Amino acid sequence: MRVLTGIQPSGDLHIGNYFGSIKQMVEAQSQNQTFAFIANYHAMTSVNDGKRLGELTMQCATDFLALGIDPEKSVFWVQSDVKEVLELYWTLSSFTPMGLLERAHSYKDKTAKGFATNHSLFSYPVLMAADILLFNSNVVPVGKDQIQHVEIARDIAIKFNNQYGDILTIPEFKVQEEVATVPGIDGQKMSKSYGNIVNIFGDEKSQLKTIKKIVTENVSVEEPKEYETCNVYNMAKLFLEGDNLKALQERYRRGGEGHGHFKIYLAEVMWEYFREYREKREYFEKHQNEVREILKNGADKAREIAMPTIEKIRSVSGISY
Amino acid sequence: MRVLTGIQPSGDLHIGNYFGSIKQMVEAQSQNQTFAFIANYHAMTSVNDGKRLGELTMQCATDFLALGIDPEKSVFWVQSDVKEVLELYWTLSSFTPMGLLERAHSYKDKTAKGFATNHSLFSYPVLMAADILLFNSNVVPVGKDQIQHVEIARDIAIKFNNQYGDILTIPEFKVQEEVATVPGIDGQKMSKSYGNIVNIFGDEKSQLKTIKKIVTENVSVEEPKEYETCNVYNMAKLFLEGDNLKALQERYRRGGEGHGHFKIYLAEVMWEYFREYREKREYFEKHQNEVREILKNGADKAREIAMPTIEKIRSVSGISY
Repeated sequence: MRVLTGIQPSGDLHIGNYFGSIKQMVEAQSQNQTFAFIANYHAMTSVNDGKRLGELTMQCATDFLALGIDPEKSVFWVQSDVKEVLELYWTLSSFTPMGLLERAHSYKDKTAKGFATNHSLFSYPVLMAADILLFNSNVVPVGKDQIQHVEIARDIAIKFNNQYGDILTIPEFKVQEEVATVPGIDGQKMSKSYGNIVNIFGDEKSQLKTIKKIVTENVSVEEPKEYETCNVYNMAKLFLEGDNLKALQERYRRGGEGHGHFKIYLAEVMWEYFREYREKREYFEKHQNEVREILKNGADKAREIAMPTIEKIRSVSGISY
Repeated sequence: MRVLTGIQPSGDLHIGNYFGSIKQMVEAQSQNQTFAFIANYHAMTSVNDGKRLGELTMQCATDFLALGIDPEKSVFWVQSDVKEVLELYWTLSSFTPMGLLERAHSYKDKTAKGFATNHSLFSYPVLMAADILLFNSNVVPVGKDQIQHVEIARDIAIKFNNQYGDILTIPEFKVQEEVATVPGIDGQKMSKSYGNIVNIFGDEKSQLKTIKKIVTENVSVEEPKEYETCNVYNMAKLFLEGDNLKALQERYRRGGEGHGHFKIYLAEVMWEYFREYREKREYFEKHQNEVREILKNGADKAREIAMPTIEKIRSVSGISY
């Protein structure tokens, strides 16, 4: 089963990204054919600082390799390195009724908020369809807000196949169950837009500083404390198992320690948890050309897999002459 | 001065196409840097029979080579063979406000007529902008209905340059003066949509048959005839000069000949006029691989010229990482 994931290069990753989706993706590499690409063409719809986009792309690649994307098991590449996707994008445009795009939530929401929209934002579901269909993806794991885009890809693929025969694989979406809800430092769901994140790869001092800002109950040091409702505990439990978790619960119940102590413990545990990833990250950070090499090899693999499809499409659509 | 022309592969060429634009284009090859491409990506917006599109592409190439496009003087290629145009198309999409496309006549007219429109029709001015801008075209000869599309290309280029510096050449449109108005067999302007055309490359018998259908005044053979208002004469004068033209005028004035005689004469003159082109066409018809070779070489030249621009664009927009 081929599972495709597009990764937005959006800057520093936080632990909500990790426990919300990256961890599952990394773990699934042994069962599925994982296809993962850094969606830099998509990012152009929102990032219009070219220098920044280039940096974000490399940062994203470095982070994901550090966190366990394994180029031996998965196909991992940068979207713009398999340019055939734009060819399919244009071809599919003739099979995309305008109404389908006009009804897309992502577009309607932006215009409703009064954003001055560009053509790239409007047409981005067609590019996403091309991303999915170029690689005969069976399954696309998505958040709820992206279900419609996979449905659009299905509609387009069905229209294309009606015209030219069974060429495109009709993809299914799979809504990602959030295995772990990750609270931000204010207790809301962790999200960059809420400004409540804890980065994965911050330096030790600033990590601790962020963790110290976690909102907690106002209870005296001596008193026993509730852990189920405590933001510090709920973050810590992502990193702890079995006896270690029980020991922390006991410290809450026992009293005699303040939330400040638990925060310091959380920072230590987290720092330890990501140690191996951090070391891998430091390695790749120092060997950016190796990262580039991995991406190029990934693009070669991805292209090789896309070519039979793209050649069939060129042939039936009359681009081969 | 670089002059760019996109040619729609639309089937049999008629003498209105020839005297309306092809002749000028061929003649201008000695003065300008002529860049001419067969717009097969654009044709996909209306032709959804792939087999037909492939045939139309080859027919178009064969016709234009026969009529005098000279691959030594001009750069002549098939749009889809320089795929970088789609890369620029996507990049420009982020510099194309939706309003610019929504106001495009070509789109508004189709939707007003109740056509179910696809995304490709809507976005085609952005692809046209990429066509123009990829090759740093200075001048784009257009019919009046296409002025707006060049203006859109200018707007997009200006927006892009404002963001990333002076990279794109701002193109000018040049409205093609119809040097000769070519009447159809019913006296209206010759146009495929009026069903009043005379093909350039029909066989002799069917050419004569078409010419015999030209609408003429009902006057007896003996009477003198007006030539200025005669559709046969007005077509014939495209092919005649000096004494030959005067001689025909004299035959009209003199009387004693019917329009049928003039029609036979027109058919002969026309047959003679296109003889050399017809022979070249027969040659290329028999050597389709030579045509393909010419197109591939043209694409190589076009790409070579496009590469510095596309590389600059990749660099500033962050696609190079």
